[in-house]
Amino acid sequence: MDNGTGSSRRTASPPSEAVRGPVRSGIPEHGRLPKYYAVKGRLLDLVDELGEGGSLPAERDLAARYGVARETLRLALRELVLEGRLQRRGRRTVVAGPKLEQPLSLVSYTEGVRRQGRVPGRRLVALERFPADAALAAALEVPSGEPVWHLERVLTADDERIGLESTYLPVARAPRLDQDFDPDSSFYAHLRERLGIDFGGATERIETVLATPREALLIGTPPGLPMLLLNRSSRDRDGRPLERVRLLYRGDRFSFTTELRPGG
Amino acid sequence: MDNGTGSSRRTASPPSEAVRGPVRSGIPEHGRLPKYYAVKGRLLDLVDELGEGGSLPAERDLAARYGVARETLRLALRELVLEGRLQRRGRRTVVAGPKLEQPLSLVSYTEGVRRQGRVPGRRLVALERFPADAALAAALEVPSGEPVWHLERVLTADDERIGLESTYLPVARAPRLDQDFDPDSSFYAHLRERLGIDFGGATERIETVLATPREALLIGTPPGLPMLLLNRSSRDRDGRPLERVRLLYRGDRFSFTTELRPGG
Repeated sequence: MDNGTGSSRRTASPPSEAVRGPVRSGIPEHGRLPKYYAVKGRLLDLVDELGEGGSLPAERDLAARYGVARETLRLALRELVLEGRLQRRGRRTVVAGPKLEQPLSLVSYTEGVRRQGRVPGRRLVALERFPADAALAAALEVPSGEPVWHLERVLTADDERIGLESTYLPVARAPRLDQDFDPDSSFYAHLRERLGIDFGGATERIETVLATPREALLIGTPPGLPMLLLNRSSRDRDGRPLERVRLLYRGDRFSFTTELRPGG
Repeated sequence: MDNGTGSSRRTASPPSEAVRGPVRSGIPEHGRLPKYYAVKGRLLDLVDELGEGGSLPAERDLAARYGVARETLRLALRELVLEGRLQRRGRRTVVAGPKLEQPLSLVSYTEGVRRQGRVPGRRLVALERFPADAALAAALEVPSGEPVWHLERVLTADDERIGLESTYLPVARAPRLDQDFDPDSSFYAHLRERLGIDFGGATERIETVLATPREALLIGTPPGLPMLLLNRSSRDRDGRPLERVRLLYRGDRFSFTTELRPGG
């Protein structure tokens, strides 16, 4: 089963993986190689053989093939699921496609997903107005108690739920949002084309977090899945705060890319 | 113990958290609130009361205070540790400081950490030359088999291990790296000041991954801790590939920030 050429896996990688770069062996220099980790290496070879969408044999058969306990096999499978190399589909475990790559730019989610040949979608969770508390009011530079929209949507790609978007915007910026805006369309396109609001810039912060129980339910993620959290504070052309956005993406399905220039 | 003012926590946040933005309640709309999650909320209030460096009471006492089983309390504690709100120090559990914020720019790790008033450090793991395999050679646009440096260092901030840096660079770019370079100094400063190499740009990809057993050992992270992985391909002023870097940061200690401009 082992072909002995670790480099063939990298050579065969899809172009989207090209930037990941070389990875040295995961073998600890001190202490022995954990058994589950050796199994993980064998499973990765199998993943490459099967290709995207391919089904893994039953756990019992795999454990027998590698000569390990079911528990050991499950540890290795669990890591590969968390890392987005494998996906559970009902009772089957299949080889996952490459992670989506979202450019870190003022390009909307819609455009980012389309560029990768996938069909973006959104499902409305809530669009409601509420009075800004002190912290949100300060962030948006409006008086405390000022009405604010909260727009919450599940983000999909090819009908797969992959993220949760929460946008906070002063109602005064878009008084008729609940009537004029199709919640299954691009919010940024709406701001630009219907309301004439242009972005002047944004500050983003990226970290990895665990989904709350509510978020896990909405996105349909297994508990304990690491998520990528992006918080955005955007401004209009006059430098005034426009919106605060909390974007939560499945860590097993998403990555961010950016282009850096000197002095940038 | 509860002060009933959820907003006071946000108002009291350090400036570095200001960009995180408002977060809605984590309570599932369908199904009941998991017990561990309710405990997590109580613990977060306690974290705010104690402040950075404060010690939590013993698990037994906390479980009694909240009227839950030790197992339930541990679930909540575990999430707060994974998220970087709490840290284990020997047998104690203390309130962690805010996550470091590394700007996504061609600013080096050294400068990024210094800007936050922390002392950056590095510990050499390996500096070795080896012949590039096909994948690495293609990425660096050198012939297959060309000698390449692999520089691997543990990154520290105030002597705490927080990341692992792996740099791959053609030996021809820096033939005397093993003699001229102080591995506890900034590599980018060395390239710039000693070798006259200026960066022309870089492509970065960010995702969340699990550390390999070897990486977890080197960084000293608990197993299963989500990490932030940054892969960088940088170019010189002539657009020629310069280096490939794999940067692995502790997910509980690190975040990335970026400034976006229209069309950028």
